[in-house]
Amino acid sequence: MAIRLGENNYGKQRVRILQVTRHTDRHEIRECTLGIRLEGDFETAHTMGDNSKVLPTDTMKNTVYALAKQQRIDSPEAFGLRLADHFLSTQAQVSRACIEIQETLWSRFAVNGQAHPHTFTRSGEEKRIAQVVASRSGRTLYAGVEGLVVLKTTDSEFEGFVRDKFTTLKEDHNRILATVVRANWLYRTEKTEFDGTWKGVRQGLLEAFAAHNSKSLQQTLYAMGKVVLESFPSIQEIRLSLPNKHYNLLDLAAFGMENAKEIFLPTDEPHGLIEATLRNE
Amino acid sequence: MAIRLGENNYGKQRVRILQVTRHTDRHEIRECTLGIRLEGDFETAHTMGDNSKVLPTDTMKNTVYALAKQQRIDSPEAFGLRLADHFLSTQAQVSRACIEIQETLWSRFAVNGQAHPHTFTRSGEEKRIAQVVASRSGRTLYAGVEGLVVLKTTDSEFEGFVRDKFTTLKEDHNRILATVVRANWLYRTEKTEFDGTWKGVRQGLLEAFAAHNSKSLQQTLYAMGKVVLESFPSIQEIRLSLPNKHYNLLDLAAFGMENAKEIFLPTDEPHGLIEATLRNE
Amino acid sequence: MAIRLGENNYGKQRVRILQVTRHTDRHEIRECTLGIRLEGDFETAHTMGDNSKVLPTDTMKNTVYALAKQQRIDSPEAFGLRLADHFLSTQAQVSRACIEIQETLWSRFAVNGQAHPHTFTRSGEEKRIAQVVASRSGRTLYAGVEGLVVLKTTDSEFEGFVRDKFTTLKEDHNRILATVVRANWLYRTEKTEFDGTWKGVRQGLLEAFAAHNSKSLQQTLYAMGKVVLESFPSIQEIRLSLPNKHYNLLDLAAFGMENAKEIFLPTDEPHGLIEATLRNE
Amino acid sequence: MAIRLGENNYGKQRVRILQVTRHTDRHEIRECTLGIRLEGDFETAHTMGDNSKVLPTDTMKNTVYALAKQQRIDSPEAFGLRLADHFLSTQAQVSRACIEIQETLWSRFAVNGQAHPHTFTRSGEEKRIAQVVASRSGRTLYAGVEGLVVLKTTDSEFEGFVRDKFTTLKEDHNRILATVVRANWLYRTEKTEFDGTWKGVRQGLLEAFAAHNSKSLQQTLYAMGKVVLESFPSIQEIRLSLPNKHYNLLDLAAFGMENAKEIFLPTDEPHGLIEATLRNE
Repeated sequence: MAIRLGENNYGKQRVRILQVTRHTDRHEIRECTLGIRLEGDFETAHTMGDNSKVLPTDTMKNTVYALAKQQRIDSPEAFGLRLADHFLSTQAQVSRACIEIQETLWSRFAVNGQAHPHTFTRSGEEKRIAQVVASRSGRTLYAGVEGLVVLKTTDSEFEGFVRDKFTTLKEDHNRILATVVRANWLYRTEKTEFDGTWKGVRQGLLEAFAAHNSKSLQQTLYAMGKVVLESFPSIQEIRLSLPNKHYNLLDLAAFGMENAKEIFLPTDEPHGLIEATLRNE
Repeated sequence: MAIRLGENNYGKQRVRILQVTRHTDRHEIRECTLGIRLEGDFETAHTMGDNSKVLPTDTMKNTVYALAKQQRIDSPEAFGLRLADHFLSTQAQVSRACIEIQETLWSRFAVNGQAHPHTFTRSGEEKRIAQVVASRSGRTLYAGVEGLVVLKTTDSEFEGFVRDKFTTLKEDHNRILATVVRANWLYRTEKTEFDGTWKGVRQGLLEAFAAHNSKSLQQTLYAMGKVVLESFPSIQEIRLSLPNKHYNLLDLAAFGMENAKEIFLPTDEPHGLIEATLRNE
Repeated sequence: MAIRLGENNYGKQRVRILQVTRHTDRHEIRECTLGIRLEGDFETAHTMGDNSKVLPTDTMKNTVYALAKQQRIDSPEAFGLRLADHFLSTQAQVSRACIEIQETLWSRFAVNGQAHPHTFTRSGEEKRIAQVVASRSGRTLYAGVEGLVVLKTTDSEFEGFVRDKFTTLKEDHNRILATVVRANWLYRTEKTEFDGTWKGVRQGLLEAFAAHNSKSLQQTLYAMGKVVLESFPSIQEIRLSLPNKHYNLLDLAAFGMENAKEIFLPTDEPHGLIEATLRNE
Repeated sequence: MAIRLGENNYGKQRVRILQVTRHTDRHEIRECTLGIRLEGDFETAHTMGDNSKVLPTDTMKNTVYALAKQQRIDSPEAFGLRLADHFLSTQAQVSRACIEIQETLWSRFAVNGQAHPHTFTRSGEEKRIAQVVASRSGRTLYAGVEGLVVLKTTDSEFEGFVRDKFTTLKEDHNRILATVVRANWLYRTEKTEFDGTWKGVRQGLLEAFAAHNSKSLQQTLYAMGKVVLESFPSIQEIRLSLPNKHYNLLDLAAFGMENAKEIFLPTDEPHGLIEATLRNE
């Protein structure tokens, strides 16, 4: 038997940046957290401590700042593509660059309905995400959203399921449905208006969730993904990961009270998890 | 020397509840997390294991559900007052009840500008809070907000400060100012329209932050508190706790680049922290 | 009515430091996170934006590093006292300095029972803490521990408690008892061997928890505090905050199984919380 | 174009369990958190809301408790295999079952060197993990550890690396090296003494980290993986994911002080990340 080095990558994680664009009449901001992973000819770094092909991860961090200064970040997607290109074009030993970008979302603050020129509030824990995987033979580009929490109080049922000897769940024809949307969609083309598409996909996912008469979270997931693929031809596939955040009806019979679907117990654990990919082929 | 039991309290924390109100044309939801602490005649529970005066913390949890069923939660403030009254009026051994309520904020989802009847999205990690401390001789009521993140890109300076032998900070006449507002205000009267006042205070705090030409976060804190006390006579005092979330200008000189206040490093630690109480006397 | 500035403080939080002491035969490390709060003559900073008495929080951070270099950190307690003294003696406008130190605990790694000279593993999320509150007229010194998780599988009961109309809890004469100890003790004198006392108090708390035939967590808390006050005359009072981390017996009757206290459901929420101070008077 | 359902799975996450084994002279505990994912014939559940093949995720949770009662959990690995078998053998529509188990580690408490019969303290945030992926044609079994924090104060350098126009990092021939080990190893055979092997691998990883004269974290990672593969023939491959948790030397020159590698700044972000798989072929 012989020990071999298999798949390997290295890079920098949690590289943070805030970009301010100072227009005359208003400022704009974009805050991102980046992860960079490089693959390539790094075997001797592992086996012999030979650093002669190792670009320091500290340099990767500096590169984020320098490239953002050279040309402003127009979108996480475009900036991810630029970063990947930079590493592939300047470092011959790198065969693959993976860039992950999480955008922290800020909303412009309004006073009496008037947009404030330079004050912003944080838009929750929801993040916009972009992922680029690039080699010299091609590249793939994903965009996405994570941490998008949504809940509906009706139009959700779960009935007719398998019952085995360990099944105690009752059928429910009017339950609360709540999830934290994580969606990643693969672009067919980089010639996409990224900001507009991102907003459209996000709204489409929520509208499908809201409008669906749900027989299960699986069915709702499918409806959400289908709407996106039908509305955005630039998107080839979408992956959805939807936890089923259970809100359990509280039994108040012990207090002589009937709970007419008024009082629920929110729970974090355990939770269901439904995941699927839909493709437009 | 003799060992004595001093101040003590016990109760239940992280009691969660979702209330759904099902109107014909639309549903409403309110989600809260509660903390309950009781003080009273509990010395022998500690010293002798005598539980004859100990109301189980499990019962406190049940009480939250039962009282919410008996009469809907109209506001965290009003529900906190009801809970405190319940424990004081039914448990003679209790001398003081402290109720803390954190409301998880949900926004009604809109489709084409139309409010959806039963779908809601989470409004970030910001929480509305209420705190009641009640005894048989009186009670105090605080409301508040926490986790409210706000940032401005200009109109903030910090100059003319003390310099000692360990001071290396440069004066800055145009810095980014960012904080996570935690505010708690004491009501002079319980005859207050709690929901409207809460929204008004929150907006007033943000407007003051946005409008202020800041010479320091201390001065901005004072301006924020002053606006609230001037606008809401029902509020007697306000406590503000404002971390100074530093966004540091990145020095790009090593790459031959000048950073004209475009690229900043967001940081979580270390951070400044400014705290003060303002009173309307 | 007039608006007045009330209690106020400012400072730096989450100042981190690792100190390495390089002895010939072995290295020692100490990692701390500090919080500094100063009170004093800062009214015009708030009301007028006058920074002439404001020592920057950035300087407070630098002071931590400089003082650690001037003389090594022997204990969190002693370092806290030095820092408080520094601010009071060099800044006339400061009337009170509060220093909070959280020590991240590391254990020396052992190979075949031999202590390794320079490798350490993290000892969990438990923290050693120290708190100094100092003014020109005196100072108080607390030490403590937080995040110390402990569980016992027997010798715990909870019976004979109050039952009201919302009580559904069953009496339990053999339950699991689990908590996360947070303890803060006030030293009567600063002439204490801080490291040895800290280890002794920690062990004493755990031994009392282990040995106690518990009728309630209140009674166990009291037994834990009593042991500390009896064993360490240098300690004047101790505050204990003990969440009751419920491990609920799972009902397996629906599967035709009897659960003889074998299978439990660990829960994080809701949880009980028992808090008390014991004093040696 | 046509929309197709691609890869999909569903299941239950964060299923928690504590098992108590009550021997006459001592108790033993094992606490686990499980994740279950099933794949199979679930297309119509997504496309038509047909739940007739959907085993509820609530039943998966119940199954964990029932199987643990039927036969005690001897190891996370063995329990994962049992669970996967259960779903494959009882649910014909399931083609693949993935079970992930995270064990929360507890240490037996000792009084005067004597093991206590029924009291345990939590062993930090480190977790033991097991992962089973099973289909009717075979199964793979991984074990692992995550959250294992380790630091060395010397015997680490980083020199001779690539320098490009964005490189500012200085060479360092004596730096601190700290990481949080995540390791997953694939067993060649299920006829392994899982508990003993787990302890041996964990110790081997730490010993290799401690003993290595590191020219880079890549080289140290390789040394760690190599030791495991050489020592444990039952292990076919090991994946290591090692963040480089930077402890930066503080520059105290501004205060007229020289920092002889005594005072460092611990940081959480940004951090390096080194990942590789080693195989014994």
